[in-house]
This record gives sequence, C-alpha cells and structure tokens, in this order.
Amino acid sequence: MKRILLRVAYDGTNYCGWQLQPNGLAVEEVINRELSALLHENIAVIGASRTDSGVHAQGNVCVFDTHSRIPGEKFSYALNARMPQDIVIQESREVAADFHPRHCDCTKTYEYRIYNATFPNPLMRRYTHFLYRPLDVSVMREAAKYLVGEHDFKSFCSVNTQVKETVRTINRLEVLAEPADGISGHRIITIRINGNGFLYNMVRIIAGTLIEVGYHWRTPDSIAETLAACDRAGAGATAPACGLTLMGIHYDEALLTVKESHREVSVDAKRVVEMPDTTDIEK
Amino acid sequence: MKRILLRVAYDGTNYCGWQLQPNGLAVEEVINRELSALLHENIAVIGASRTDSGVHAQGNVCVFDTHSRIPGEKFSYALNARMPQDIVIQESREVAADFHPRHCDCTKTYEYRIYNATFPNPLMRRYTHFLYRPLDVSVMREAAKYLVGEHDFKSFCSVNTQVKETVRTINRLEVLAEPADGISGHRIITIRINGNGFLYNMVRIIAGTLIEVGYHWRTPDSIAETLAACDRAGAGATAPACGLTLMGIHYDEALLTVKESHREVSVDAKRVVEMPDTTDIEK
Repeated sequence: MKRILLRVAYDGTNYCGWQLQPNGLAVEEVINRELSALLHENIAVIGASRTDSGVHAQGNVCVFDTHSRIPGEKFSYALNARMPQDIVIQESREVAADFHPRHCDCTKTYEYRIYNATFPNPLMRRYTHFLYRPLDVSVMREAAKYLVGEHDFKSFCSVNTQVKETVRTINRLEVLAEPADGISGHRIITIRINGNGFLYNMVRIIAGTLIEVGYHWRTPDSIAETLAACDRAGAGATAPACGLTLMGIHYDEALLTVKESHREVSVDAKRVVEMPDTTDIEK
Repeated sequence: MKRILLRVAYDGTNYCGWQLQPNGLAVEEVINRELSALLHENIAVIGASRTDSGVHAQGNVCVFDTHSRIPGEKFSYALNARMPQDIVIQESREVAADFHPRHCDCTKTYEYRIYNATFPNPLMRRYTHFLYRPLDVSVMREAAKYLVGEHDFKSFCSVNTQVKETVRTINRLEVLAEPADGISGHRIITIRINGNGFLYNMVRIIAGTLIEVGYHWRTPDSIAETLAACDRAGAGATAPACGLTLMGIHYDEALLTVKESHREVSVDAKRVVEMPDTTDIEK
C-alpha cells in the first residue's frame, strides 16, 4: 500500500466544485471514477481544498492509497490519458503514508482576476470577472495592508460556514495591474493572496470588498473596522466564482517525504495481505 | 447613409470561422443577424479578415452601411447587449463612406501561442497549442529572421488557395517565451507576426515550420531554401487553429476619417431618399 499525491489543475466552469454534490458533476468525482477504472480498486481521493462551483485551480492537491505497482510519478501520465480536457494532473508522486493534505500545516495561494475595461474580452471571460468601471488600484493596495497578518476573519466568511474558529493568517496580499489588449486603460487586475487557510468564500469576499474600495465606495482604513466588527454584513459582496483560481498549496517537504521505515513495512505487508487494506483510507 | 466600422473580438472555438459557411455558425452570421434585428435593416457586414474555423480574434474589423441615427461610437454598446458571450464588439465608429477594410493598405498582427510544458494547462487549452517536447526558442528566432521582409510566400500557403499573387511583406516576426504556472521549464511561447497581408493558412504554416526548427528537425537556414522552392511541400505542418489569434488590423487614420464633404452629401441625401440607398453595400 502506498499513498500518492496528485497536483490537479482544472477549468471549474463546468463543475459544481471540487467536492461531490447532488446537483452536478464534481472534479473529485471525475478523478475517483478514472482512478478506480485505471487501478481496478475503489478509490476515493482526499482533497486539500474544496473549491466552490465555478472556481478554477492551477494546483489543488489530493491523495489516495493504492496497491498499484505504478511508480508514483507515472500516475499523472496514466491518468491524464483518461481525463477530460478541463482536468489535468500536473504532477503525481508517492508521499508519506501518514500525510494528510488537510490535517497539516500548509499555505495556499489564490488569485482573483478582474478584467477591467470598457467591454468584456471573450478570450478572458471564463477566467476573469469583468468590471467596466475603472478601479483605483492604489487605494485597493492600501486597503490590502489592513488584511495582512493574523486576524479574526469572521466578517469575511460566508454565514453558511460550519467553522467555529475564524482566526486566520494572511502572509501576503498583492494587488497587481497589467495592461490588456494593448488598449489604453484596459487592465487585468490580479488580487494575489497567500495565507495559512481560508474560510468559506473568504477570498471572494475579500475581492468583493477590495473592489468596493477601488470604486471609492469605502475607504481603505474602513477595513480595520470591518475586521473588528466580526460581522459578515459589514464586508463587501462575494465576487463571482469565475475570477478565482487556486494557484497552489505549499507543504513543508519533510511532511511529504516517504520515510524509509514505512516503505519497508508497506513492502512486507504487500506480501501477506490478500484483501485490499483500506484501514487508512478516509471514508 | 453612413458607414460604421466595428472592431470585433471573439473566441473562435465554437465557430466555423468568420465567413458564412454551410457547415456551421460563422461569426459574421451572428453579427449580421443581431445588427439587422437591432436596426430593422438588412445588414451584411464586409469583413477585413476571413479567419478560419477555430481561430480567435482580439481585433478583427468589419464595416456596414446604415440609415440609423445611432451615433457611430454607440453601436458597440447597443450591439453587445445582444451578443453571445464569445463575440464582443470592442469599438465602433463612423468611417469614410468609401473606406473598404480589404481594398486598402493595412497591416495585420497575429499571435500564435504554444503552451510548452509536461502536461496541458486546462486554463490555457482553448487559446494555445499544447506541445510537451521542449522547444529551442533561440533557433526559432534565428529562423524567423529569414522570413522578415518581402518574399514570395508560396511555400507557406495552403494549396487550396485561389490567390495567384503570393508575394507578401512581413514587417516583424518575434518569438517570445514567458514562464508559465511558476513551474520550471513550463513556458508560453508566442510567435508574433506583423505583415501587410497573409496568404491562406500562412501564419499557421509559419508556426508549424518554426516548431520543426525548434525541435531541430530542420535548421534555421533551411528556411531560405524553403522560401526559394515556392513549394508548399517543403514547409512544415499547418499548426492547429486554436493557437492562433488575430490581434489587430492597423489602417492609416486618414483612410478612416469621415470627410466633411461626404458627411454633408449624406445628410442631404437623407432628406430626399425614401428607399434605403444600398448602392455602396458590397453584395
């Protein structure tokens, strides 16, 4: 038995999100289906981040356990041959048998992209949120400073959450602007955020609030009050899913590395076990 | 009667190209349909560039004549409200009544984009051509130099063309490489080309040939022989449509500008004409 990590990129447009849902096809579902068919085992991956319906990923992470003798780094090739065009396994590798992608320290990087121009751009429409009114990036950058660090982000969390603990740390929060289409005033504005964990809808609520700052509907320093109030009603609207991409999840390499002692146990176990060992698969 | 120019951006994925075809929906067809419905006139636009099935545009151009009193720059707003998401009018303006987007001097800029990485990127798949084998950009740049200038591009033209005159001038041909996904070795390679006109499939055959140079299947200086041979069989494969985007068409402003004398004639004509004047609409 060995644990395999997959780094997964997907265009979220046609999916109801990462996690299995009754109302549509989930990314996780496609991966489980194709892995199970490939390996002739009943595979249920454990995902690192349950991205919402319509949200994209450049580097979400999941793990699964298998008896397969395919080398860790070859799963990506075998699996991509079966995958639809909008889900791609960017990397696969064997990891420590006790590595759990949610129950350990990590940081995540998200990008929220805004296409800010007179009219939408059909070549950007799937991966950006279109806004025609020009945003003032300098005040957005000022506002962003108030969010960096450890804070109670209750105001920036959907009221639908079941999470009790709402303190999180944002390590970096940048607001980037680059020219688009070669047309004066047309820009792609990227809100890039790295932190140790994010509450439900947190990045999209931060994006929606920074947009309101960029329109001068609220001042940069009002963000301090919004944080202190611990009240979702005080923050801005939740920005649309299509603008959001989970760029990557960063783990300490020591957590991932296969311990040699574990590998030996695993090899011994293989010799004697007749039935699949599913004791360490999360149900 | 006045002549209106539209600058049009589209995601070509779901269209059979710009021009009306029996086998699918054309971009031109959608514009004609929506313009005719908007203006209650029978509109048939004259396009500048007949992009192929699956090719994208950031700035194709077309013109039409209308009796409408909508100001030139407002057509984009009126028309975009009716357009599907994958076609957007980026700009509209009144132009000289005798301006014809094909029968005058212009230069066109195309970009052919290659996603060069171990696996495809689902967020780029619609607008790039995926190649996993690493391309040697430096030899592609050397090869590109042989194509710049006035040449007979018969070798770089589909044999299906009806055009007799195959001499064209390429003003600039750049091969750009930028890192992608933050993963070492993953790149977007852009072949950017500007010229005074392009033969059928010319940019895609140039891209396909430069790709073969980048793989060291042919040398940079072999391009000189390929040009001299005037034989399509000597050039590389036609690269896939999805990688190609028509970035813009550049006209001398003097050709576009409405002449005041014409405007007066047009105003006078409006007063007396009862039936639509269609004499200067191309059938």
